Amino acid sequence: MKAARLHQYNHPLQIDEVDLPKPKGEGVLVKVSGAGVCHSDIHFMKGEWKDALPVKLPLTVGHETAGYVEEMGESVQGFSKGDAVAVFGGWGCGICQACKGGDEQLCSMPRWPGLSQNDGGYAEYIHVPSYRFLVKVDGLDPKNIAPLTDAGLTPYRAVKKVRHLLNPNTYTLLFGVGGLGCYAIQYLKLFSPTNVIAVVRSEDKANLAKKMGSDFVINSRTNNVIAEVKKITSNQGIDVAIDVVSSNETLTTGMSCLRKKGTMVIVGLMGNSFNLPIMESVLNEFRVIGSLWGNYNELTEVLSLAKMNKLQIPVNHYKLSDVGKAIENLESGKICGRAVLIP
Amino acid sequence: MKAARLHQYNHPLQIDEVDLPKPKGEGVLVKVSGAGVCHSDIHFMKGEWKDALPVKLPLTVGHETAGYVEEMGESVQGFSKGDAVAVFGGWGCGICQACKGGDEQLCSMPRWPGLSQNDGGYAEYIHVPSYRFLVKVDGLDPKNIAPLTDAGLTPYRAVKKVRHLLNPNTYTLLFGVGGLGCYAIQYLKLFSPTNVIAVVRSEDKANLAKKMGSDFVINSRTNNVIAEVKKITSNQGIDVAIDVVSSNETLTTGMSCLRKKGTMVIVGLMGNSFNLPIMESVLNEFRVIGSLWGNYNELTEVLSLAKMNKLQIPVNHYKLSDVGKAIENLESGKICGRAVLIP
Amino acid sequence: MKAARLHQYNHPLQIDEVDLPKPKGEGVLVKVSGAGVCHSDIHFMKGEWKDALPVKLPLTVGHETAGYVEEMGESVQGFSKGDAVAVFGGWGCGICQACKGGDEQLCSMPRWPGLSQNDGGYAEYIHVPSYRFLVKVDGLDPKNIAPLTDAGLTPYRAVKKVRHLLNPNTYTLLFGVGGLGCYAIQYLKLFSPTNVIAVVRSEDKANLAKKMGSDFVINSRTNNVIAEVKKITSNQGIDVAIDVVSSNETLTTGMSCLRKKGTMVIVGLMGNSFNLPIMESVLNEFRVIGSLWGNYNELTEVLSLAKMNKLQIPVNHYKLSDVGKAIENLESGKICGRAVLIP
Amino acid sequence: MKAARLHQYNHPLQIDEVDLPKPKGEGVLVKVSGAGVCHSDIHFMKGEWKDALPVKLPLTVGHETAGYVEEMGESVQGFSKGDAVAVFGGWGCGICQACKGGDEQLCSMPRWPGLSQNDGGYAEYIHVPSYRFLVKVDGLDPKNIAPLTDAGLTPYRAVKKVRHLLNPNTYTLLFGVGGLGCYAIQYLKLFSPTNVIAVVRSEDKANLAKKMGSDFVINSRTNNVIAEVKKITSNQGIDVAIDVVSSNETLTTGMSCLRKKGTMVIVGLMGNSFNLPIMESVLNEFRVIGSLWGNYNELTEVLSLAKMNKLQIPVNHYKLSDVGKAIENLESGKICGRAVLIP
Repeated sequence: MKAARLHQYNHPLQIDEVDLPKPKGEGVLVKVSGAGVCHSDIHFMKGEWKDALPVKLPLTVGHETAGYVEEMGESVQGFSKGDAVAVFGGWGCGICQACKGGDEQLCSMPRWPGLSQNDGGYAEYIHVPSYRFLVKVDGLDPKNIAPLTDAGLTPYRAVKKVRHLLNPNTYTLLFGVGGLGCYAIQYLKLFSPTNVIAVVRSEDKANLAKKMGSDFVINSRTNNVIAEVKKITSNQGIDVAIDVVSSNETLTTGMSCLRKKGTMVIVGLMGNSFNLPIMESVLNEFRVIGSLWGNYNELTEVLSLAKMNKLQIPVNHYKLSDVGKAIENLESGKICGRAVLIP
Repeated sequence: MKAARLHQYNHPLQIDEVDLPKPKGEGVLVKVSGAGVCHSDIHFMKGEWKDALPVKLPLTVGHETAGYVEEMGESVQGFSKGDAVAVFGGWGCGICQACKGGDEQLCSMPRWPGLSQNDGGYAEYIHVPSYRFLVKVDGLDPKNIAPLTDAGLTPYRAVKKVRHLLNPNTYTLLFGVGGLGCYAIQYLKLFSPTNVIAVVRSEDKANLAKKMGSDFVINSRTNNVIAEVKKITSNQGIDVAIDVVSSNETLTTGMSCLRKKGTMVIVGLMGNSFNLPIMESVLNEFRVIGSLWGNYNELTEVLSLAKMNKLQIPVNHYKLSDVGKAIENLESGKICGRAVLIP
Repeated sequence: MKAARLHQYNHPLQIDEVDLPKPKGEGVLVKVSGAGVCHSDIHFMKGEWKDALPVKLPLTVGHETAGYVEEMGESVQGFSKGDAVAVFGGWGCGICQACKGGDEQLCSMPRWPGLSQNDGGYAEYIHVPSYRFLVKVDGLDPKNIAPLTDAGLTPYRAVKKVRHLLNPNTYTLLFGVGGLGCYAIQYLKLFSPTNVIAVVRSEDKANLAKKMGSDFVINSRTNNVIAEVKKITSNQGIDVAIDVVSSNETLTTGMSCLRKKGTMVIVGLMGNSFNLPIMESVLNEFRVIGSLWGNYNELTEVLSLAKMNKLQIPVNHYKLSDVGKAIENLESGKICGRAVLIP
Repeated sequence: MKAARLHQYNHPLQIDEVDLPKPKGEGVLVKVSGAGVCHSDIHFMKGEWKDALPVKLPLTVGHETAGYVEEMGESVQGFSKGDAVAVFGGWGCGICQACKGGDEQLCSMPRWPGLSQNDGGYAEYIHVPSYRFLVKVDGLDPKNIAPLTDAGLTPYRAVKKVRHLLNPNTYTLLFGVGGLGCYAIQYLKLFSPTNVIAVVRSEDKANLAKKMGSDFVINSRTNNVIAEVKKITSNQGIDVAIDVVSSNETLTTGMSCLRKKGTMVIVGLMGNSFNLPIMESVLNEFRVIGSLWGNYNELTEVLSLAKMNKLQIPVNHYKLSDVGKAIENLESGKICGRAVLIP
């Protein structure tokens, strides 16, 4: 089968011909319909995470995958050949505290496909180590919902962490309306009557934000975010900020906009660190929380929304052989929504 | 009556003779039995907070007060002359969102005694604007429990914010075993079977920490905190850190000790800011939360513990006229527990 | 002024001419624009609650009131004559645990207008004991939003108690689409993507339920609720049931529809008791929770929704002198939405 | 191997010689050191649950098991022959919503050993379908900690559900100080400063309750529980009731003792149903919640307490061949703590 593999950090992926994996035990071979292209893949390919998540190359990239069950190991239960499935990417050990608590994406020994020692979805087939990492998506087209397994899942978890704070008289500030942000807006509106203010860096993204339901949009290239937030909120400030970019700059700006008891959710991975003010954090009881990907049940909830036809899923399809182009376009901010590779 | 007042930032307090206030409406005049001396008073007297909390001087300092009801306005209900009372210091407006939610100490227009426009407790009498800021303490000696209204209350709220995380197989790291920290240790043990590790800077404080019930103590002057924590926790790391110091250094050290899903509670006000790492915060879903003082119900709970005889309350009594000495000793770290002024 | 007063249980209200109250201290006299007529008023007038909530008659009925500030006591702050206001009816003591925790409607010594010793809103003017029980509603017409202070508030609190359970793949069963139920539907849809199933007893109410946004409606006069629920949920069952009727029958039916980990919220007061099955409750970890009215902050949130124009508020206006007719129509189920008296 | 098996409901168990199971895949054969005898076993053997949990007989009874790893299937990871282990009994499917949420004991298709289609621990060996249901207990003697897997685990989960309510000025009422109740008392004291009132039916149990740390004990054979509770709480009433008996009578009594916002946790399975009052439940916002067994992480926490030497574990050892006697003694209330079979 064909697979887009990383042989060396900072080098282009190569389309290799590799052996088809043979599933055993609980393992399942899934024929890939679509594989989303994520900023994390770029961080990974550039070697930025080689110390945090060491991996032996070559490796097939890709952690956002959906397709059809092709072949199953002898212990698989409840699935049949041809089932349309989304692949949950937080492959955990199943016995550590995080896994047993339901957060397999936080496993102390994670086996994330395409980011750790397991091959990912930029390929014709992906081997999934257990049927317990698959969600059936009958009635949906796998190539369209592949992005839901990360781009759609990650902001879902972030929004659920603050859902209880999103009351009628609140404002929520969202940094970034790329692959993840467009879902964040939709979840904020599906789960609450909060007023959403999206911060973008281009007119295309401003339009996308409005289409997704954002109540207000600030273009940070042309406007001062803090001043605009003051205007929009009548100086009240922001109750919740969700940062799917998370540069030093966006986080610092976001903290400055928080009102008393405000909460900042860090989702993105752009920056290294930012400066947290101590007295303001105490006097206002600020909360800053990290949010990582999502768990299996959260993925089933996201997919339920898709089944109920309540999600817009902006997708741009690319051939697997055009993976280089997809990555280039993502990096230069040209993709509205998510690039999805079709093997 | 006599009152220790600040006439100018960075100058010693003066013992002035001032008029006895006359309570009206819901107001109550309380004869002060004891007034705790707090690091916040020092920050305030040095003018460090003059921008954040602007005040017109002269002002009677002191926000930790207990005593006896002396005189009452005509609308006071449920109190009688001579009642022993603790003064809750978070004097809120009673109608903003924070007040109506029960957190009057977080009021958007706070009138904290001795720190804002209202005179505090370093005096023979304190005027409390409403009986709704008093808690009866029948059976307790007010001069001994004055510190509970802040030193005892502030860590109580901090511990309650993380109580649900303090499970049997966890470790909690506490920075600072001064006026507040000695209560933090006691609450951690009263509310959970977590293993407490206290970080101190002197042998006196190390002994105090052990006496209060800390399972482990690290002297950060003589030992490397991160290395000691690794040893104590068998490399597992810390589930919860409570920082009642909150310098740049303690917070940075604390964050480095956190394990996956770890939580840092900022309580102290020593530093200006610290550097929060982004990738670690996301990958581990760290949480950093500020905690401010405590609310009225939390104060009643703290006082209940005292009534049940479940709290050790280390107190050093000083005459009101020795206020300068008490402050000096506090600043030089010579006080174990709390200095309390006796007018 | 004119006031509709109860002189004897089980007798019609009398329109009396009574003295205009004179506000003092924090008290405020409000000119009533509208006063909602509630099933609780009927329970009260029939004497059903005379033991639980003993009252000395005559008493002006009515606990759902909005109008304009007419006159203020000398300690009132932040309000001016002519301000449009909604009256929060949970008049608490301000110092008990419930009040200090923000739930004044749960005060241990409640002074609910029109239901306890304080005169209510079926009158030209109502005396409110403190401006802290008023919410400004600039831009809204008080006579239209009076029902929000109870009919709109009570289901709001009930929905917020279960909000975290209302996920995409869930079903919520609502019993009763009268004055309260029509708001419950709206909140369920504003705060979540849950599928709402409303149970009604007439075609008028079925139509109202659909207009408010219910996804499914079951007429329990013509259909078996349990069988219909099975059909709608594909045998999955109900995650949350909210019962604004709460007869023995509706509660028993609701419990039978719950799936594993299901939650029943009791809001209504029609029945005396119902039979809770023990083994089912343990094996499925059922939760049954009572919900009483709402608190001040919750009322401000409801009113925010009205200001944002996100609430439909079905109102039927009656003259104060037609109070008897309004009550009769409510009792016979002829009112869609809420009857509001206009003095 | 020898196994105590039920061949027919309402008949004594038979000690049979059966084949030693052979573990495959993730399966593990555990040599049983101790198997706790539980009231649930008696309910089961009497056929009371044959409709709720249908089972094909004969079946080896016993769901509280600990021992040593004897043999492992080829996919087992992280365990070695001879490891001391506790067997977590909530054998779930691993992919349903409950399992993926960490509550395998609430699985929609449970395979509880000794209560459903899988053989339990009243035998020389037990076959566990996956190493993911084992917890290592190095340093503890398996035959002494077997009861922790249910008797110790079930009240742990119940207490954790209400932990946030157990504040200094509260009272907690516990019905039943048998196998489970003696742990409930210990957890209440380990996790809070609440005042514990235990209700028992014999002097032996009263003594056990005191030994476990109960602050107050009421013998319901000789005293009126409601009157005693009023006396003890100065008419304040109970904040939390935990009922590990759950007869109609204990639940009704418990509800009568609740104060405002009180919570009743149903843990036991003695009765069929009880009458829940509607108006009281609404006016006081009562909560009634079922609690089932515990999950894997909760079991590891319980075992941590044992490792920290913070739990008293009252155990009475019986030979496997004396299983009939053990059951008889349990049924007649003669066992203080837990009977444990030693094969």
